[in-house]
Amino acid sequence: MLSKNILSDFPALSRTIKGNRIVYLDSAASTLKPKPVIDKLSKFYLENYANVHRAVHTLASESTQMLEFSRKNFANFLNAGEHEIIFTSGTTMSINLIVESLVRSKMLNENDIVLTTLVEHHANFVPWVRLSKLHGFRVEFVEPSLRFGTLAIDDFLKKDINPKVVAVTGHSNVTGQLIDIEKIRSIFPNSILIVDGAQLIPHQRIDVKSLDIDFLCFSVHKMLGPSGIGVLYGKSQYLEALEPFLYGGEMIDKVSVEDVTFNVLPYKFEAGTPNIGGIVGANYALEYLNNIGYDEAKKHVLDLTKYAIERFRNLENVEVYGPLDESHCGILSFNINGIHPHDVAHLLDEKFGVAVRSGHHCAQPLMNVLKSQSRLSQFPNSTCRASFYIYNTYEDIDILIEGIKRIKEWFDV
Amino acid sequence: MLSKNILSDFPALSRTIKGNRIVYLDSAASTLKPKPVIDKLSKFYLENYANVHRAVHTLASESTQMLEFSRKNFANFLNAGEHEIIFTSGTTMSINLIVESLVRSKMLNENDIVLTTLVEHHANFVPWVRLSKLHGFRVEFVEPSLRFGTLAIDDFLKKDINPKVVAVTGHSNVTGQLIDIEKIRSIFPNSILIVDGAQLIPHQRIDVKSLDIDFLCFSVHKMLGPSGIGVLYGKSQYLEALEPFLYGGEMIDKVSVEDVTFNVLPYKFEAGTPNIGGIVGANYALEYLNNIGYDEAKKHVLDLTKYAIERFRNLENVEVYGPLDESHCGILSFNINGIHPHDVAHLLDEKFGVAVRSGHHCAQPLMNVLKSQSRLSQFPNSTCRASFYIYNTYEDIDILIEGIKRIKEWFDV
Repeated sequence: MLSKNILSDFPALSRTIKGNRIVYLDSAASTLKPKPVIDKLSKFYLENYANVHRAVHTLASESTQMLEFSRKNFANFLNAGEHEIIFTSGTTMSINLIVESLVRSKMLNENDIVLTTLVEHHANFVPWVRLSKLHGFRVEFVEPSLRFGTLAIDDFLKKDINPKVVAVTGHSNVTGQLIDIEKIRSIFPNSILIVDGAQLIPHQRIDVKSLDIDFLCFSVHKMLGPSGIGVLYGKSQYLEALEPFLYGGEMIDKVSVEDVTFNVLPYKFEAGTPNIGGIVGANYALEYLNNIGYDEAKKHVLDLTKYAIERFRNLENVEVYGPLDESHCGILSFNINGIHPHDVAHLLDEKFGVAVRSGHHCAQPLMNVLKSQSRLSQFPNSTCRASFYIYNTYEDIDILIEGIKRIKEWFDV
Repeated sequence: MLSKNILSDFPALSRTIKGNRIVYLDSAASTLKPKPVIDKLSKFYLENYANVHRAVHTLASESTQMLEFSRKNFANFLNAGEHEIIFTSGTTMSINLIVESLVRSKMLNENDIVLTTLVEHHANFVPWVRLSKLHGFRVEFVEPSLRFGTLAIDDFLKKDINPKVVAVTGHSNVTGQLIDIEKIRSIFPNSILIVDGAQLIPHQRIDVKSLDIDFLCFSVHKMLGPSGIGVLYGKSQYLEALEPFLYGGEMIDKVSVEDVTFNVLPYKFEAGTPNIGGIVGANYALEYLNNIGYDEAKKHVLDLTKYAIERFRNLENVEVYGPLDESHCGILSFNINGIHPHDVAHLLDEKFGVAVRSGHHCAQPLMNVLKSQSRLSQFPNSTCRASFYIYNTYEDIDILIEGIKRIKEWFDV
């Protein structure tokens, strides 16, 4: 358990749904928000808010300082330079930015190879597949060979290719597998390495320099922060060379009817009024997590995951996806044989107050892999997914397990 | 004056800066936020928040309902269909989305003509100029011929061309001129008409159907709402035909290694987790404005503008830009002969608590026009800009004028 008692920071957890207290097991989709973070954000909006950068008046100066302080803290957090931290609207936009900018800059050309995997979230899959149709680069896919959608490093080694780009998740949003980025980098030392950190960064502090990551993307709403704000780390040598993705105010130096020159990093990639509240709020969330302790938070989630895996092992006719070792973190996808995951999720909510997600989790290619590996009588092309964060307890998992047992009884499974 | 007393809804206005109460005249950059809107947003984040669309549990259902209720209200507001309302991160992203999607869909091809103006904000200028370099379409510019950057309808009529696209602001962020969209549409009945409504929509309710607008973009932070959220109206026939701009989760139907099919409108254009708090908060802002009365709010701003123009007319050696008639709304740009606008803005803040903006206002092409029309001894390629909103008063303008008079005395102008 965490050394601090933080549950009272999350008012949603005091709610009851049809007589049951809420057991929130959907943090991989988005985390709840701590009251101290939201209170500070409100205070900022009401007392210090103005547009940033372009004015000399007091409110604008205060807002600008708070925004740039956030950038500095995220730079320190990742061991990056402040000019290498781009604020975007989220991981999806960050990855789209990278792909389109690589294409516009002719750093990704016809017949160049992009290597990704079949366990990716659509955010790190659809941009590559679709823009390869429009621009002629090739996309190759690493197939997970281990237990129910689990990637092996050998799966990467098997690929005897020299990819221009390797784009890989750091943490599967379906199987909960933590991916060994260091080993992947060692296999592809000369590729542009892009890491989808949407699930990873809420748990794991990453040093982009020591891991030699070229681009890292994550979303603040999955780590206690407000909506609509993402962080994109980009190695400065690439950011300097890339054509921008969004054009507009603040990202320019000179504008005429003939052409445009661009502002310095990071502003070159931040066209328009930024999500000022989102960026300031992101920093409050980071401070809250640092105050709890990042390592302690991760250990808590790993402990919960281990406990959940043990308890699931005793459930007959329930298939749990992903690895069963310590590389499995925070996310537990499962199916009950013969019951559709939407029905399971609905009953868990309705009868037990347990919030889990069901569906393909924006990972249809992985659903096809799981289908081929599943031993269910019929794989429903989707799973139930329970995911854990700092505010979850062992009791939450007990309630989940009890709910699954009851549902199994009702369906006679 | 507004019939409701709303000043107490804006705590920032109770602050003092070096002994002076804040006079906030920078709403064209971004408006202050009303406490009722921020309080409701906080309550949403703490009690109802979860990720939307993809789950059956209670919090997710509540969030989804509140998000879609916002879309419905913005659709009603614009007389559009709900499927025609796309939430983006702001006006800048909306315009970039349109340009890139037109290019990807081959609806904007080499030698096609885009007509825009020299009074545009960079958000509606740089994407056209820069992407024309990459894709070979042509951009033509309407030059304002009237008083200090004021567009005449004749300036459009002079353009004897048949543009594929007409992309024009509805309200200049420098001169404050309201542009007659209806007349522009009548001149170019067959062009794709894109209206940058960033400054317009905070003041003016627009019926996209009766004006036959094809795309309309605006940002919620300029109309009392939170950061990082924009509304893009697109006529459904175009949205159906366009290739998406951002690829990822939620915007897809089927995903495989071969290709991708897309979700229905509006989701096709909303990849990834949306700015849920931003969208819900946008609706609170819209409700707040509707509660005051949109027409009443506009009348208040027009009254303030008229009063300000009259008071500025009596100031010698001060040049006021834009029209002097009732088409001048809410934004007053000016220069004092011989004093740099940054110095004026700094002194207004420091000595009088007056927050105005100074600079090129993301409109460098218009600064070149003003330079050619100015009668100042030396035009500084920038202006001071005072802008008004619902919380401003005649007294605010008196303080501004008093400040300018004192600065003129100090500089002996």
